[in-house]
Amino acid sequence: MSGEFDFIDWIRRQTTAHEHVLVPPGDDLAVLKWSADDLLIVGVDQVLDTVHFDSNVHTPREIGRKVMNRNLSDCAAMACLPAAAVATVALPKSRDIDYAKQLFLGMKVAAEIFDCAIVGGDTASWDAPLAMTVTILGRSAGIPPLRRSGAKPGDHIYVTGPLGGSILGRHMSFQPRVREARQLGKTGIVTSMIDISDGLSRDLRHICRESRVGATLHSSEIPIHPDADILSRQTCRYPIEHALHDGEDYELLFTTSEEQPFGYWIGRITADEKIIDEDREVSLEPKGWEHKL
Amino acid sequence: MSGEFDFIDWIRRQTTAHEHVLVPPGDDLAVLKWSADDLLIVGVDQVLDTVHFDSNVHTPREIGRKVMNRNLSDCAAMACLPAAAVATVALPKSRDIDYAKQLFLGMKVAAEIFDCAIVGGDTASWDAPLAMTVTILGRSAGIPPLRRSGAKPGDHIYVTGPLGGSILGRHMSFQPRVREARQLGKTGIVTSMIDISDGLSRDLRHICRESRVGATLHSSEIPIHPDADILSRQTCRYPIEHALHDGEDYELLFTTSEEQPFGYWIGRITADEKIIDEDREVSLEPKGWEHKL
Repeated sequence: MSGEFDFIDWIRRQTTAHEHVLVPPGDDLAVLKWSADDLLIVGVDQVLDTVHFDSNVHTPREIGRKVMNRNLSDCAAMACLPAAAVATVALPKSRDIDYAKQLFLGMKVAAEIFDCAIVGGDTASWDAPLAMTVTILGRSAGIPPLRRSGAKPGDHIYVTGPLGGSILGRHMSFQPRVREARQLGKTGIVTSMIDISDGLSRDLRHICRESRVGATLHSSEIPIHPDADILSRQTCRYPIEHALHDGEDYELLFTTSEEQPFGYWIGRITADEKIIDEDREVSLEPKGWEHKL
Repeated sequence: MSGEFDFIDWIRRQTTAHEHVLVPPGDDLAVLKWSADDLLIVGVDQVLDTVHFDSNVHTPREIGRKVMNRNLSDCAAMACLPAAAVATVALPKSRDIDYAKQLFLGMKVAAEIFDCAIVGGDTASWDAPLAMTVTILGRSAGIPPLRRSGAKPGDHIYVTGPLGGSILGRHMSFQPRVREARQLGKTGIVTSMIDISDGLSRDLRHICRESRVGATLHSSEIPIHPDADILSRQTCRYPIEHALHDGEDYELLFTTSEEQPFGYWIGRITADEKIIDEDREVSLEPKGWEHKL
């Protein structure tokens, strides 16, 4: 049986140098140099066994990748550049150090795609299921953070890709839309943005609520993922229901002050604080993901 | 039963404004303004039920306070000022929203002592025990971060307070030594520092290893906490054994290039990479806390 400090030594050997990391993992805390021009954008997301993944089905590499990618997707939602991350692992006692290494490598491979440094963490073992967290630090790098609160009546609503049925596998393998978000941020016409983690109906509500506006959706314009079709045969619900309400697509939902060619147009922002599906002539109620506490 | 978003609304109402927080909790990520003069010091620590606390014994306020204070103690170890924190809670389904609120308030009260803003987080419920994490962001604020790696042969070794027996209760109620650390940092003679979480014998080894030095301890000089005396009657071990090896004291262990009056002098740094207890004429083996993976 190996110990925590052997594992920390192994992690330190995996760590590559980054210009802005002055003190890498191994001290009490990491030390970073933050450019004076950069805002610091920060948040945290966790993944829990049986809630966000199934350790009997998914490999530790997939699980590590997912927890990192959820956070990189939050960076995308703010149009910032991922810069650094710290992670925690609550490891079941039944799992060994090789399993922990695979979790780390899953995180590392996902982070390296965006040149994001893993600068610290905390691993402990316990008699309970696997729980992981990643805290992400992003930098604005010349683009003001895109918030949920900037949508205005008349704005156009878009999504970056087809939605629904992510539970069939894409919720583990999605690619965070960081580059797309940066491109969108550069246009200067994006007024609000969020990543679709709770489901389109719920995440659009987040934007409307923060912006104090409503929306008219055209559900016939919503791109439906083939997975939503497949899933609909199992659930006996319409594919559009999965596209509207399933969570964990991790596409971007955004509004713009004028029409533009990127992504799929799905509706308009309105002054009236309601969300209407004009094609089906119904009020759109959120049915997406919400944790019950 | 309440939902995640009601809880987020409640947290937002608890949040006080901080000068450097541009976007508070409620968006995808928080946005901070980091002063150009400030290094960014970052790390994360978790607490797990039955490992770091016992939810059958400790109140949610105590648990929330502990996870925040562990991280504030890491700030102390680097002599930085806590500035902002994000947190996660993996909440057992058997606990309700009021329990989650008490966890948050425990964190908040601990953070406010040091004017540290809680700027984001993630709460989810699951069929498993309570797990919490806090990620802390500190700023150097005029004092270079004190690392583990700066101890030199001839340096003096100190601790800030009496050690041992923290399991009797102090491991839940300790006060992070942030102010003491800042005072020490200002002297300019502190060469290395760490907070005692794994036990004096193990944490001194961390300093020696990172600094590539050894140490001669005078165990008769080590301040022994009354709790170590009480515990020794139960364990039939000498109180000094508890002072040397028990974890979670969260006092600071530091080295200085010259003698100074703060804290308790306990020995000297040596060039030979061994740790010797001169008073008992034995080599000091680490017996402090290490997670088995």
